[in-house]
Amino acid sequence: MKSFVDYSHDSDFSIHNIPFGVAVFNKEYIACATRIGDIVIDLASLHDFGYFENIKGLDENVFEAYTLNEFIELGKPITNDVRLKIQELLLEGSALANDEKTKEVCFFDLDKVQMMMPVHVPNYTDFYSSIQHATNVGMLFRDPANALLPNWKHLPVGYHGRASSIVVSGVDIQRPVGQIKPPTAEKPFFSPSLQLDFELEMGFVVNKNTELGEHIPMEETEDAIFGMMIFNDWSARDIQSWEYVPLGPFLGKNFGSNISPWIVTMEALNPFRTESPKQDPEVLDYLKFEGDKNYDINLEVYLKPENGKDNLISASNYKFMYWNMCQQLAHHTVNGCNVEVGDIYASGTISGEDPKSYGSMLELTWRGQNPIKLSNGEERKFVEDNDTITMKAWSEKDGIRVGFGEVTSKILPARKI
Amino acid sequence: MKSFVDYSHDSDFSIHNIPFGVAVFNKEYIACATRIGDIVIDLASLHDFGYFENIKGLDENVFEAYTLNEFIELGKPITNDVRLKIQELLLEGSALANDEKTKEVCFFDLDKVQMMMPVHVPNYTDFYSSIQHATNVGMLFRDPANALLPNWKHLPVGYHGRASSIVVSGVDIQRPVGQIKPPTAEKPFFSPSLQLDFELEMGFVVNKNTELGEHIPMEETEDAIFGMMIFNDWSARDIQSWEYVPLGPFLGKNFGSNISPWIVTMEALNPFRTESPKQDPEVLDYLKFEGDKNYDINLEVYLKPENGKDNLISASNYKFMYWNMCQQLAHHTVNGCNVEVGDIYASGTISGEDPKSYGSMLELTWRGQNPIKLSNGEERKFVEDNDTITMKAWSEKDGIRVGFGEVTSKILPARKI
Repeated sequence: MKSFVDYSHDSDFSIHNIPFGVAVFNKEYIACATRIGDIVIDLASLHDFGYFENIKGLDENVFEAYTLNEFIELGKPITNDVRLKIQELLLEGSALANDEKTKEVCFFDLDKVQMMMPVHVPNYTDFYSSIQHATNVGMLFRDPANALLPNWKHLPVGYHGRASSIVVSGVDIQRPVGQIKPPTAEKPFFSPSLQLDFELEMGFVVNKNTELGEHIPMEETEDAIFGMMIFNDWSARDIQSWEYVPLGPFLGKNFGSNISPWIVTMEALNPFRTESPKQDPEVLDYLKFEGDKNYDINLEVYLKPENGKDNLISASNYKFMYWNMCQQLAHHTVNGCNVEVGDIYASGTISGEDPKSYGSMLELTWRGQNPIKLSNGEERKFVEDNDTITMKAWSEKDGIRVGFGEVTSKILPARKI
Repeated sequence: MKSFVDYSHDSDFSIHNIPFGVAVFNKEYIACATRIGDIVIDLASLHDFGYFENIKGLDENVFEAYTLNEFIELGKPITNDVRLKIQELLLEGSALANDEKTKEVCFFDLDKVQMMMPVHVPNYTDFYSSIQHATNVGMLFRDPANALLPNWKHLPVGYHGRASSIVVSGVDIQRPVGQIKPPTAEKPFFSPSLQLDFELEMGFVVNKNTELGEHIPMEETEDAIFGMMIFNDWSARDIQSWEYVPLGPFLGKNFGSNISPWIVTMEALNPFRTESPKQDPEVLDYLKFEGDKNYDINLEVYLKPENGKDNLISASNYKFMYWNMCQQLAHHTVNGCNVEVGDIYASGTISGEDPKSYGSMLELTWRGQNPIKLSNGEERKFVEDNDTITMKAWSEKDGIRVGFGEVTSKILPARKI
């Protein structure tokens, strides 16, 4: 496939991708969008020009919206048709290729566009599905001899996170203040977090509303997953480790999470499916699956100090996940918990076996014991004020590249206390 | 104060109450509502008749809505004016008292009305703020010698719950299925929950949207709390105790919670303020407060077996709370976590010192060791299929009664597995 839009061979947004997002065009007009190379396309206007006329079920212009929820809710038969139609329109020699008027209205250079939150998120759940991450955290927070708790290999452990504080890439995050109690302190005290961390995660978005009491069995899970994004689950380790027993993470997490603005569809990621790790002990029937449910997605984390350059500090891969998305969704709903369009389900930190693939500062520096050296000579145990963390994700195979772009945000100093 | 509407002296919905809800009138028309005695009043139509004309900021008919969110978001100066106006209109000799036409359109007998969810709930948090409950659960789930964890008296422990599965009173709940692993079992197995439980809680609703990074200091918390409801946090103890380490409750809770349909305002509850328990050790500055922040609200739980009568199985009181609502909200936002209009913040199970005041079957039967005897001769360790649980809540002082009515729902058998 070759597009009439030129782009670099290492662009995440090749003709094979066709992701969906929501953009502010020229600082004044908001609509759903897609992207190819460095061109962002206003889908609402493209719809007005009649380019989606033959797609059944897309009579209404659902792209005239501040979120993708209405579009996503149409379900895979329609959203897939739309994606394939856009792909076809972007090929050399298509009707659109020579329609200068439409292109003038609908095509925007990146610098004329600001990306918004792609979805309204009714509910957010965070899983804990990387075995290396769970082992590392268990060693650091609890008992090195029994790092993995007894339930971990039987079910995809997860918890409800805070939907309100999920923001898009580019929204900077203020360092949280709160109660901390280092092991050496007799009493807790009030302080800005001294152990601010990122977590390298991927999230997926659900495309359906289920009724309370309904479940999504394993064989129907893939149909319910619209696509994925990069998810930076900012974490304050000192607040978290004091507060989290017995009910789980709370203020150590809910001060902000950033997501990448483009949702890449599962169809675009299909060529990058890969074998799932063997699960031993065998899982219960409702968690059994067939076929390749993991995805080979390269992940990178960069730390940029205030007066410095981007430092690559972690290189991981989504394929390391012990529990896959289908298992997460089947488990989440097995008890009748209802899901809603736009819900985000995040993976948990994705760490590989190689210490350079650990997905958090907590693990990379082993809670500060082994600081990371930066190119400007500074060291980092955790994230400092005005550091910018950027996460990238992409798949590549047989010369085809499909990626997520990046999620980036800076840590602002804590408010005065 | 005497109303022209007759009601029983033990009605929760006296002239002193004036709660807010959302109702389906005559099975066809939905609007915001209030209630006095057994009369439900359509506020949208009352607005159309011009009865709110003098209230600044209420030009738009926000009662023409499927939720109270738009009304609540107006903030206390306006919502209080509206409540006082309704109260005035319901007094003997008011303009409304003799306006037969308006009453004919706006006043409905209870049996012509079905109550809906009063708010759209963007986020839901559950606290754990009763010291007796936390102690009981600590003894049952963990270590009797160290039942209360080290953080418990320093901060109001809480966790994010599932907003999507909160439903109104009257919506029955299906017994969840899932993984359980009794201590005697070698491996987990798949089963309907064998330890289904209720939790007697109260929740409060927030009336403002804050920005990410903003906090609500103690002295501003009361202004941000619109009102309260009864909250039944259904819990599957066997699913919960297997899954909850280390990230907290998940499928053991998110299969359904029921709330009472009428939100009682903090202004209606003002006469029932009461002293707060002494907090020792002293709390950090951001959690310090002045004045009476607890409320004397009687709480009752009834269990009705399929072919039997209501059995009073618990009598508790909201005043037993160790941590108050203002502390919960100040703590929740101290790190910059943003809140949204309609958010529900629940108390956690409310247990007093007397074993008859315990707010869950787990505690009342001491995890099944001391079954409850019912009036029909049956016994209960936990909630059985087709049992109906009803919770009531009301305050009473100096002949004035303000109450919540009830939250009631039945446990339906699990789906076939």
